[in-house]
Amino acid sequence: MANKSFGIGIMGLGTVGLGTATILMKNKDVLTGRRGKIEIVRVLEKYADRARADLSGIGADPAVVTDDFDDFLSTKNMDIVVELIGGTTLARDFILAALKKGKSVVTANKDLMAIHGKELLDTAKDNQVDLRFEASVAGGIPIINVMKKDLIGNQIRRFMGIMNGTTNYILTRMTEENGDFNEILKEAQDLGYAESDPTADIGGFDAARKVAILSSIAYNSRVTLDDVYVEGIEKITSRDISAAASLGYVIKLLGIGEEIDGEIEARVHPMMIPKKHPLAAVGDTFNAVFVDGNAVGETMFYGRGAGDLPTGSAVVADICAVVEHMQNGVLGVEGCTCYLDKSIRKQDDFISKFYIRMLVKDSPGVLAMIVKILGDYGVSIASVIQEKGDHQQAELYIITHSVREGEFSKAVDTLIGTDVVYQFENIIRVERD
Amino acid sequence: MANKSFGIGIMGLGTVGLGTATILMKNKDVLTGRRGKIEIVRVLEKYADRARADLSGIGADPAVVTDDFDDFLSTKNMDIVVELIGGTTLARDFILAALKKGKSVVTANKDLMAIHGKELLDTAKDNQVDLRFEASVAGGIPIINVMKKDLIGNQIRRFMGIMNGTTNYILTRMTEENGDFNEILKEAQDLGYAESDPTADIGGFDAARKVAILSSIAYNSRVTLDDVYVEGIEKITSRDISAAASLGYVIKLLGIGEEIDGEIEARVHPMMIPKKHPLAAVGDTFNAVFVDGNAVGETMFYGRGAGDLPTGSAVVADICAVVEHMQNGVLGVEGCTCYLDKSIRKQDDFISKFYIRMLVKDSPGVLAMIVKILGDYGVSIASVIQEKGDHQQAELYIITHSVREGEFSKAVDTLIGTDVVYQFENIIRVERD
Repeated sequence: MANKSFGIGIMGLGTVGLGTATILMKNKDVLTGRRGKIEIVRVLEKYADRARADLSGIGADPAVVTDDFDDFLSTKNMDIVVELIGGTTLARDFILAALKKGKSVVTANKDLMAIHGKELLDTAKDNQVDLRFEASVAGGIPIINVMKKDLIGNQIRRFMGIMNGTTNYILTRMTEENGDFNEILKEAQDLGYAESDPTADIGGFDAARKVAILSSIAYNSRVTLDDVYVEGIEKITSRDISAAASLGYVIKLLGIGEEIDGEIEARVHPMMIPKKHPLAAVGDTFNAVFVDGNAVGETMFYGRGAGDLPTGSAVVADICAVVEHMQNGVLGVEGCTCYLDKSIRKQDDFISKFYIRMLVKDSPGVLAMIVKILGDYGVSIASVIQEKGDHQQAELYIITHSVREGEFSKAVDTLIGTDVVYQFENIIRVERD
Repeated sequence: MANKSFGIGIMGLGTVGLGTATILMKNKDVLTGRRGKIEIVRVLEKYADRARADLSGIGADPAVVTDDFDDFLSTKNMDIVVELIGGTTLARDFILAALKKGKSVVTANKDLMAIHGKELLDTAKDNQVDLRFEASVAGGIPIINVMKKDLIGNQIRRFMGIMNGTTNYILTRMTEENGDFNEILKEAQDLGYAESDPTADIGGFDAARKVAILSSIAYNSRVTLDDVYVEGIEKITSRDISAAASLGYVIKLLGIGEEIDGEIEARVHPMMIPKKHPLAAVGDTFNAVFVDGNAVGETMFYGRGAGDLPTGSAVVADICAVVEHMQNGVLGVEGCTCYLDKSIRKQDDFISKFYIRMLVKDSPGVLAMIVKILGDYGVSIASVIQEKGDHQQAELYIITHSVREGEFSKAVDTLIGTDVVYQFENIIRVERD
């Protein structure tokens, strides 16, 4: 077995596929020394000519390319299939077919894992092969394996991650330049940091998939995309960012998983975190996952959440893990880690602190009335700043103490019904201490 | 095998030993669910009465305590021995005896691994058992396993770690309060953050052990303590820290491993790093290891580098890895990762940028003369600040460009021989870009 060569088939030679192939070629010596001989024996790519040119460019054999899945799957000596096609239709069919044919699969497909994770993991187990997906969360940052293995001795009290590079880039630039959301989004699109349809990133849906995957692992109970509460960064303005700064906070889009009283809270939303928090310094397109375990305490894992080589680094780590399992004859042993069945906490039951920016009538007694109404719903106030505006309007900045979100919503509804509150300009959650 | 209970014997029930036992008791349910039933079947502790009281305090069986090693080693159903005695004499004998008796060993002993790592790993392999040591570097932060497994696809260009909490605490406080080294050291001792004999921490020797261990793993070639160049923080003054700040830098004690032209550079010394560097924000007693891999790019792993539960978290992760190997019948498969034999780079060949603070004669032409002498040795200057002092003395702050350290030393020797340089007050390395 020591001299056996392990055959890899790559489905999809896009950015991450080519990055993975590049690492397998460029770092061949260390990979051979550390783990074994790993060879790209087949590549499935619709744009076959481009794929052949790309493979030639990195010194790999262009003859391995095919654009036919059946042809691909019938490849001899193909031990491991790497799925980098993306999406939840074709990719799902191909992975299921590969698993059923006894191939171990490595994927970076967060959409698929966040929705069909259980089906895929169960199919792998039934067929005695591995299914690994480290690259599906936070690109090159080891976090899935870290949670499963390195932090195994911990009850994870909470994880909070900056798990989307596009939104972190936009918020970082808005913070540094006091810039406008739409202008910076436009520039991010020009730079290739944001998609032409940025909804999945900006709206928090990309991060939500990662929260579903990480929560399932952290709490050993299945969490799917639908279980995650999602809010994006569309409404964040430079005014909120500067207000946050003057209050000692930074605004980040965070993906959060937490276990409270046996229930799982899974959510993505903008949050104000103290400037001294380790996540506050994570800028530009970088990602980081902050994990608070009941043994290890506060830890953080930082790096590139996307890109050809960083994501390829995670894919190659998974390939090597499968190779190791083949060498040791223990394929298919690590199945799904969701052996429990916990409930998902509803938004109304979340406990949060809030920042509220609102336009109110500038007249004596208005603040007292607002404070009274908030208090009626159990919302107590940590700090208030009032700024004079035009036309007898004032702008109020309030930070509340922790409150149940259901009560908070009722307080907001009541305030909207009064004639002194003209508009809630923004409401942003603030980190609880 | 699924219902087998795995027996743990702990040697040394000090801080980390009790932390480990606490985690095994407190998180028994998740450990059982995630990995299997793990039981403390024996504890070896010289202070047996104290150990019994401590075990009772966490709900563990006090009857497992013994103060006799032979008695300990003859325990039935003891699958894994956890060594937390420390030191390099008794601990080495005990580990070797346990390995030879077919017990897998988990240790947090950096002194031992940095000096006798090869002997211990070879003995484990010869006896078909595991020897794991995640807790020996950076406490609760997963870094050994991360480098071995998660970053396996990378050639590690460089790692730089804040791997000693005591010195990081002292430097953080000196930076925040512009405080005096000796006063803060005294306070750190009173708080229990520094030993009564702080030499190993302050002098950089503790970090050097961790650099030896991590370099061996990163570069797949044995690096022992003697191979590591070491400089401590004794000479850092508040003056240097404020000079660094005004130049845009923070001073940290870093442990660094780097591969250059096939040679390994392993060193511990204070270094000025840019304020925006991810390591710059790592304060107080926290540790962090920054790793630059040729695939993943820049990553950082942050957390508690010491303490009962954080270090215990790493010990428990290793215990669970051994249990997994037992369940899969693959004990003793992961041996030493040093399959290469690379040379160690000598200090003279290090390439560094330097900060120099020196007292010079305050007279026209002096600066020109100093610049000329530095230039004769190939030391070019990035920036200079000159401050008037008393008694016709001036203080010079120079930051150089990169230079071979051998040439730099000669330049310094030559400058000392002149009558215009009164004193080199400090020389600190500066991060190369």
